Amino acid sequence: MSQTALAPLTLQNKLESARAAARVLATATAGQKNAALTAIAGAILASAGRILPANEADITRAREGGLSAGIQDRLRLDRSRLESLAAAVLQVASLVDPVGQAVRGSTLPNGIKISQVRVPFGVVGVIYEARPNVTIDIAALALKSGNAAVLRGGSAAQSTNQVLVEIVQEAISSVGLPALSVQTIDEFGREGAQQLMRARGFVDVLIPRGSAELINTVVAESTVPVIETGAGVVHVYLDESADLDMAADIVVNAKVQRPSVCNAVETVLVNASAAQRLLPTVLQRLRNVGVTIHGDEATLAIFADAVPATEDDWGTEYMSLDVSVRVVEDLDEAIAHIRRYSTHHTESIITNDLGRAERFLAEVDSAVVMVNASTRFTDGGEFGFGAEVGISTQKLHARGPMGLGELTSTKWVVRGTGQVRS
Amino acid sequence: MSQTALAPLTLQNKLESARAAARVLATATAGQKNAALTAIAGAILASAGRILPANEADITRAREGGLSAGIQDRLRLDRSRLESLAAAVLQVASLVDPVGQAVRGSTLPNGIKISQVRVPFGVVGVIYEARPNVTIDIAALALKSGNAAVLRGGSAAQSTNQVLVEIVQEAISSVGLPALSVQTIDEFGREGAQQLMRARGFVDVLIPRGSAELINTVVAESTVPVIETGAGVVHVYLDESADLDMAADIVVNAKVQRPSVCNAVETVLVNASAAQRLLPTVLQRLRNVGVTIHGDEATLAIFADAVPATEDDWGTEYMSLDVSVRVVEDLDEAIAHIRRYSTHHTESIITNDLGRAERFLAEVDSAVVMVNASTRFTDGGEFGFGAEVGISTQKLHARGPMGLGELTSTKWVVRGTGQVRS
Repeated sequence: MSQTALAPLTLQNKLESARAAARVLATATAGQKNAALTAIAGAILASAGRILPANEADITRAREGGLSAGIQDRLRLDRSRLESLAAAVLQVASLVDPVGQAVRGSTLPNGIKISQVRVPFGVVGVIYEARPNVTIDIAALALKSGNAAVLRGGSAAQSTNQVLVEIVQEAISSVGLPALSVQTIDEFGREGAQQLMRARGFVDVLIPRGSAELINTVVAESTVPVIETGAGVVHVYLDESADLDMAADIVVNAKVQRPSVCNAVETVLVNASAAQRLLPTVLQRLRNVGVTIHGDEATLAIFADAVPATEDDWGTEYMSLDVSVRVVEDLDEAIAHIRRYSTHHTESIITNDLGRAERFLAEVDSAVVMVNASTRFTDGGEFGFGAEVGISTQKLHARGPMGLGELTSTKWVVRGTGQVRS
Repeated sequence: MSQTALAPLTLQNKLESARAAARVLATATAGQKNAALTAIAGAILASAGRILPANEADITRAREGGLSAGIQDRLRLDRSRLESLAAAVLQVASLVDPVGQAVRGSTLPNGIKISQVRVPFGVVGVIYEARPNVTIDIAALALKSGNAAVLRGGSAAQSTNQVLVEIVQEAISSVGLPALSVQTIDEFGREGAQQLMRARGFVDVLIPRGSAELINTVVAESTVPVIETGAGVVHVYLDESADLDMAADIVVNAKVQRPSVCNAVETVLVNASAAQRLLPTVLQRLRNVGVTIHGDEATLAIFADAVPATEDDWGTEYMSLDVSVRVVEDLDEAIAHIRRYSTHHTESIITNDLGRAERFLAEVDSAVVMVNASTRFTDGGEFGFGAEVGISTQKLHARGPMGLGELTSTKWVVRGTGQVRS
């Protein structure tokens, strides 16, 4: 307990202490990590008096700075949201620890035993926008998977994040794990983000969460390995054999149930021979709940209550009650359209034809391909992972919904009795 | 069969045709891919008359350009090496096809069936040095795993690679798969390599193979995801309980059996309390087969037939009959030394103490950690993978020896019967 005022940590100091914390976390037991998570959940609930004023300061700045009502809403924390955050942390505590899980193993002919086991990455960097809930979510997921976390949140949430990270650090420290297992580098601004993207040897993996622009910037500038959690221009294709009710139920669910998320459908493709049979009902049900239809010419000829689709519409992730609709000649044209405009997140075919179902599953190159199911099922929680780290649209390391296991690497453990290679 | 002379393909043309070929390969059967591999093996043996003159031209240029004897040797193909290459291709044909393998799956409570299956990456880019055998190895591994390959080899091997790729393309085409599944972009020089590193959307993963300098350049400049196959500053730690014969056998094997490869040991650490017992025998056996010992002061005090180690020695991958030797106080100091100087490839402890063995396995953060085994076992062939794509020293996607499975991504296949999310 020194009486001397400590100099503020430099970014390099912070990265070095993250690395040191990661070494301790790598061999922490599930019991220790769960104790830290339980302490964090308790501290969130007990600290509303510290968190909410800081959050109010961020919101006031946002309002005065003219930020949109949507951004202000994403920024806002209240008691109910704090309760949800604490519950999410306890949910992470209840999951199985991925660290130490054996992926595969064998005994070699010479008697050497090899096994590939899950180990933490080490230090996970996350760059995200002004959503304070991400600060807590990522801290919990990183801790559970044995990783230290270095966080760079949106500047609009800086006061809130500062307090949240302090509370998390106090809670971690209270159970004997390193306080600096979770750190923010918000105070270093854009320069800090730049350094984080180039911190090879200090940061093992970088996860950008947010807009396509944010993700593209991180991918372009980072020399640290990146996991992209991507945008979703998601398609549903109505095959000529599609059941009408099923088609309508799935399209409406995929568009309307939560339009602002990445697994919501943005484009409906329909086979020309079934367009007259399917579109009037499917599109009217969408109109009934306020969806704007952006149709191609053939769609407009069948269903008049629509606006003409522009070329840009086909590549747009609306995240709103809008949907693009196109009539295609056959499965080949549907697959070609998806190839051209999809972000390779999720695509679903509605069909009763086995051959075309299998072709769609095999030939559409997306993280998740579906038959007769709503695209909204692309979700870590729905897949039974228990926690949602994000949905990867890249092909390296993780693809589709990411659970705790995707926040780990592996190491090979080799046990011999003196063997040498001949 | 047009009589018009075709314009040479631009690099962009080549990338687009690789993408188109990848779509065909993605759904090719194992039978088709194995037929292509068998045809390639046959063509290599039948085409010595085309390959060897091109290779001779490269070697002549290398000699006239003053390239080292080592480079000239790596460049050289002869009938015996062609036979080995053909045999390696047939070996790849004999392996199980990774595409379509189910990694995991389950039935959700609502009846939806999900399964995660292996799929090809799509287009694999490889940047490597003047080793024509890599051209054939990578072509075979990429084909077997359903990937198209875009190759950028060292300019010194350009004539050889040109002929090899032509022969591979003819063989692939002869079994009805796309000739442009394997392409070289050597003719575009350094500018071509730059474009390859930035070909997001056309190249799914880029694998640099060669020197640390080459790998670092690709990591720094690439916006395409990279798998690093890295250098090895590999350590063996002789614990105070190490058996003398086992220690000597393993150190000699790890250093001498093939000194020029990445899994050969470069630094031997020894516990101070066992140095007098172990070092004289271990180091004399190394001296007997011509190894130069670079020792710290404590080592030189015990074993005089050595040169003083410099600070640089501890971080050097000798790839020659040289070894660094240091006496450390305890396991903590050994682990700290490894943390500082290791490239996180492979480290082995020689011990009879269970507790220290487990600590070493848990705390050393390398792709492969061993107890009482030669570091030379870090090898895809030894691990039973059947083929060696490389040894990854990164933590994302692949770590340690890479088999065919590491050349694949996954996709989630979701089969419903009309389910929507509530």
